[in-house]
Amino acid sequence: MPKTTVRAGSNIAFIKYWGVADAAINLPLNSSISMTLADAHTTTTVEWDQSGRLAEDAITLDRQPLTGQAAARLARHLDRIRDLTGMTWRARVVSENNFPMAAGIASSASGFAALSVAGCLAAGLNLEPGALSALARLGSGSACRSLFGGFVLWDRGDDHETSIARPLFPPDHWDLYDVVAVVSRAAKTVSSEGGHRLAQTSALNACRVAQAEQALPLVRQAIAERDLAALGPILEQDALAMHAVMMTSTPGLFYWQPGTVEIIHAVRQWRTDGLEVYFTVDAGPNVHLMCAAEDAPAVQTCLAALASVQDVLVSRPGPGPLCSEDHLF
Amino acid sequence: MPKTTVRAGSNIAFIKYWGVADAAINLPLNSSISMTLADAHTTTTVEWDQSGRLAEDAITLDRQPLTGQAAARLARHLDRIRDLTGMTWRARVVSENNFPMAAGIASSASGFAALSVAGCLAAGLNLEPGALSALARLGSGSACRSLFGGFVLWDRGDDHETSIARPLFPPDHWDLYDVVAVVSRAAKTVSSEGGHRLAQTSALNACRVAQAEQALPLVRQAIAERDLAALGPILEQDALAMHAVMMTSTPGLFYWQPGTVEIIHAVRQWRTDGLEVYFTVDAGPNVHLMCAAEDAPAVQTCLAALASVQDVLVSRPGPGPLCSEDHLF
Repeated sequence: MPKTTVRAGSNIAFIKYWGVADAAINLPLNSSISMTLADAHTTTTVEWDQSGRLAEDAITLDRQPLTGQAAARLARHLDRIRDLTGMTWRARVVSENNFPMAAGIASSASGFAALSVAGCLAAGLNLEPGALSALARLGSGSACRSLFGGFVLWDRGDDHETSIARPLFPPDHWDLYDVVAVVSRAAKTVSSEGGHRLAQTSALNACRVAQAEQALPLVRQAIAERDLAALGPILEQDALAMHAVMMTSTPGLFYWQPGTVEIIHAVRQWRTDGLEVYFTVDAGPNVHLMCAAEDAPAVQTCLAALASVQDVLVSRPGPGPLCSEDHLF
Repeated sequence: MPKTTVRAGSNIAFIKYWGVADAAINLPLNSSISMTLADAHTTTTVEWDQSGRLAEDAITLDRQPLTGQAAARLARHLDRIRDLTGMTWRARVVSENNFPMAAGIASSASGFAALSVAGCLAAGLNLEPGALSALARLGSGSACRSLFGGFVLWDRGDDHETSIARPLFPPDHWDLYDVVAVVSRAAKTVSSEGGHRLAQTSALNACRVAQAEQALPLVRQAIAERDLAALGPILEQDALAMHAVMMTSTPGLFYWQPGTVEIIHAVRQWRTDGLEVYFTVDAGPNVHLMCAAEDAPAVQTCLAALASVQDVLVSRPGPGPLCSEDHLF
């Protein structure tokens, strides 16, 4: 069987996915909306071993052989593809991110999107986009959104078949920039995968879920109208509410660092000074600053003056998964 | 009429007062519980001017003549005492805090408690404690709790007469220390008085209020049993939930500074290392660390190693308002 290589973008959520109604299938508590990123992506090459010589899946991530729980999580995802096809072959998988992992940029989203598409295509399995989205969701919830380019809605749904993402607007609809201020490249002590099970232990969770569902049509309209002044305040509220749920769950998840707070204050000051920029924060300490393309250089210049900013990544809206002939092995 | 001087302690809330059902009388959305502080207090001397030469109230705070909105707020409180007595005389008021104002230590709580008691006594008006507590509440909500020593419950109540504080346990019931890590002495850009009106604009507010009411009997029991391991996690949850409501109100109130987050992470690390200490945060950036008396020196030593800590104040549980012959003028 042929090697298949797929590149998929990460995504940044405007209304976050946080908390699961059914952890076994990553059925979320609320619907979410995201933008797929052009410039933060995972490239994955998959080859199914027809020789039968591989005793188990051989996975390399960012040039390191993957072992332990991380390898087991990917092997379980390959099992899902084996179950769909009836194959029993093991796979060779080589995967590379072009951005730091486990620091609030969703490497699991782009990773499981790329693995789902590459794994199925390499097996000769042609799933329709909704089924691929559902498959990716089983690997990592937010991965289902990276199956599509541009601006994407993940409908919460009721079960495995209906909890899938679909595109709202293509990448060229709106040249919105995500300028990521990296405050820490350290790995998280709690993966977001584990955290989703804790959401319902927070007394604030029910209020956040209700608010997220109310905000969805407003976010959709703001994107339709390319209206950052309407989108921005909702972005910030939703990110703050998600972190409030994280902080007040048991055990509490406190992802923010001092630098996170420094940047939040700075963004509000810059806005007062006339720069139209809003923040959101994923499950990590890094801060994503959303702005128009023409303001991205000014935002980068402002960020460079902050002591806590270690690195800056910039991304535009990007396409859905793309096949490539540049195999990684 | 005689000069009267009263010293009243500030208080630190374990279940916070945040949000008003009726802003005109500071009727709170939820009941609250606090500890009155021995070592952070306001001393106030009041003299009613029978000569009639004073055209308006003359107020000095921390050796500066008070003017503008701050003076008007205190004059309105003196009006309440004039209304109760039928007097029309103006007052000379001199007041001093022994701690920095407007930085998350409730100077308005101790200030309005001292002013209420001194103002009434100087006018020859002997109100019973509940009526004094209600009067102080009209000046600043949390001041009603500083009318009593030790551990105090403010019952939300239904109206001016019933929304009053009462003592639960005397100061010597439990030698619990409040070690305040001062990260900023800067004045707040939004006073907490204004913020209370915003609570109900937060989507998280209803969940926080319900949680606070549920937590009250648990806090009361933990204090009764002097059980810091039971009290501490509730303290932290309630403070985080209050700040979540602040951050997600419209406009948002973001009181935390980078140092606030540095200390929160540090407290949890120290606890992992075996030091029993928990945090709470009032409407400001400073962090109050609650610990047993014997652990207070270790907590102070730990705090001294943090870059963001500018100053440390330490307080034990203190008495209710005390009269003094050491007049300030």
